[in-house]
Amino acid sequence: MQVQDLGEQGLLKRLRRFCPIEFMGDDAALLTPAADHALVVTTDLLVDGIHFSDQTTTPADAGWRAAAANLSDLAAMGANPLGLTIGLALPGALSVEWVEQLYQGIVDCLQPYQTPIVGGDICRAVTPTIAITAFGQVLPDRVIRRSTAQPGDVILVTGSHGASRAGLELLLQPTQGQALSAADRAQLIQAHQRPQPRLDAIHQPALRSARRPPAGMDSSDGLADAVLQICRASRVGAQLERNLIPFPACLTAWVSEAQAIEWALYGGEDFELVLCLPRSDAQALLDQLQQLGSQARIIGTIIPEPIVYLRDSSHIYPDEILTLEQSFQHFQSPASA
Amino acid sequence: MQVQDLGEQGLLKRLRRFCPIEFMGDDAALLTPAADHALVVTTDLLVDGIHFSDQTTTPADAGWRAAAANLSDLAAMGANPLGLTIGLALPGALSVEWVEQLYQGIVDCLQPYQTPIVGGDICRAVTPTIAITAFGQVLPDRVIRRSTAQPGDVILVTGSHGASRAGLELLLQPTQGQALSAADRAQLIQAHQRPQPRLDAIHQPALRSARRPPAGMDSSDGLADAVLQICRASRVGAQLERNLIPFPACLTAWVSEAQAIEWALYGGEDFELVLCLPRSDAQALLDQLQQLGSQARIIGTIIPEPIVYLRDSSHIYPDEILTLEQSFQHFQSPASA
Repeated sequence: MQVQDLGEQGLLKRLRRFCPIEFMGDDAALLTPAADHALVVTTDLLVDGIHFSDQTTTPADAGWRAAAANLSDLAAMGANPLGLTIGLALPGALSVEWVEQLYQGIVDCLQPYQTPIVGGDICRAVTPTIAITAFGQVLPDRVIRRSTAQPGDVILVTGSHGASRAGLELLLQPTQGQALSAADRAQLIQAHQRPQPRLDAIHQPALRSARRPPAGMDSSDGLADAVLQICRASRVGAQLERNLIPFPACLTAWVSEAQAIEWALYGGEDFELVLCLPRSDAQALLDQLQQLGSQARIIGTIIPEPIVYLRDSSHIYPDEILTLEQSFQHFQSPASA
Repeated sequence: MQVQDLGEQGLLKRLRRFCPIEFMGDDAALLTPAADHALVVTTDLLVDGIHFSDQTTTPADAGWRAAAANLSDLAAMGANPLGLTIGLALPGALSVEWVEQLYQGIVDCLQPYQTPIVGGDICRAVTPTIAITAFGQVLPDRVIRRSTAQPGDVILVTGSHGASRAGLELLLQPTQGQALSAADRAQLIQAHQRPQPRLDAIHQPALRSARRPPAGMDSSDGLADAVLQICRASRVGAQLERNLIPFPACLTAWVSEAQAIEWALYGGEDFELVLCLPRSDAQALLDQLQQLGSQARIIGTIIPEPIVYLRDSSHIYPDEILTLEQSFQHFQSPASA
């Protein structure tokens, strides 16, 4: 069955089974934020052929990743999700099954956080396009911002980086990575197709009891980009330790360490959090994250000079200065497909 | 200059002048709803060639109407706007001026309500597509729902209907309506291009002091559709008086009264509110709306029998039974272009 057989109203009706009943039937959805909380809102557009494609992404995976990207933006603000709306612009000849699988992927990603789809709209288009707006809530004094990093803070990442980029490579070039075990291979592909937003990280007791919320953002556009954005917003710099950048250990069976670090810094779509906070708070958070099984790591320090550089304590590589332009060039490469 | 000359990041940066500074620079926007209020969320997609076109709509008008439709959905819930997010999927060859005019139209519509654009996303697409999500706030016991109409309530419309449909006709067929004065002509076209959401209506003292909030929705899909949707959700019916359906008086200089009523009932995009409430409350509200200059009118009564019919007290026309199918057929016609 195709979208045009059901029509927009018919399709919306059919998709209602993915949404809690209480949000249906009025001009808009009604939600009740908790008392004293601020509202956090983020919006994303995803277009077939740019943000996802049939080659690397099933409709369910496209839905999952779209939801994960939005939940990650909320986590990056320290916020808990309240709900999201979904707008779909779809060609009439698209199969209804495609749309239902997309919704299933979204709902599967939202399920652990009990976050409902609270509204939607559907219309015709040449290219499948998904518009997601997510909203969450946060106590005003616990908001995570990019602009509050202070010299002396350490830089903590909630997990390893580069797995999503490596998984994409395996999907685009299936003959690559023969040296990887089947399990490692599957895990890298999983990291690309089903990234996990780190809403768990913002609930760790070490963060709740810290004197101030950390500065931070997510690493959806790459770890290097996140550090650079935080430093620019905070008017500070950073010294990163090359040998502390965490990437999946299995990568070195396939590519050089230099390539693995390149993917970790610039690959993007890992959806980890990059947090800047005093060392004592960071150490407590690190212990808690590692108990969860995260490959969390302190990777460097915030410095007063407005420059971000990557240092190699083994002195094999020269110090490397990172720039937004460089990060953007990487972002423009197939890495962001 | 074209969109592709600036790139997505460059264009987003350029559009920041339309957004208050405090919402920029983090992963998501932060807003503070008033205490004890519920959050109301609505989302809309608009696609070039379906919801707007260069023939009838400038980019500024398309932006205005997109914003007005969302504000109207909030008004239809009894909610005050807090902000909106805008996602744009745009062809690279589109002019930057087009996008800036679109934003200007949105901002012009929002200005009287001091409602900010709090977030956005831009990506490439074949067809210009606008995704708007609006959110507002309402006290939980003042929510306007479709499902609470009661037999004995009267049905009040906040203004006249059919002007938007008539304006569209004049835009599509400029040789039509020669009997209209230039001022009337301009007013009908204005009604189509720059519809006014009725946020003013929900603030009238008569509504605030009423024992219960009215049942209601907006008439964006037509007056007949609104009455039918309310009756279906409330499991009631309605008796409408044909001679009380308000349409712009000037229309009868151009088309038959039957045609004017047809446009009023089925034309859509008038963005008035259709409210069901006890007669005494309705009369007080009517007085206040008419003082504002609105062509507000009580057009009928809610009845227990689940049927909606249009009665002609002059007995020239037979009673007509209205159905959603009929309303939907009208909605599918060029009337909804």
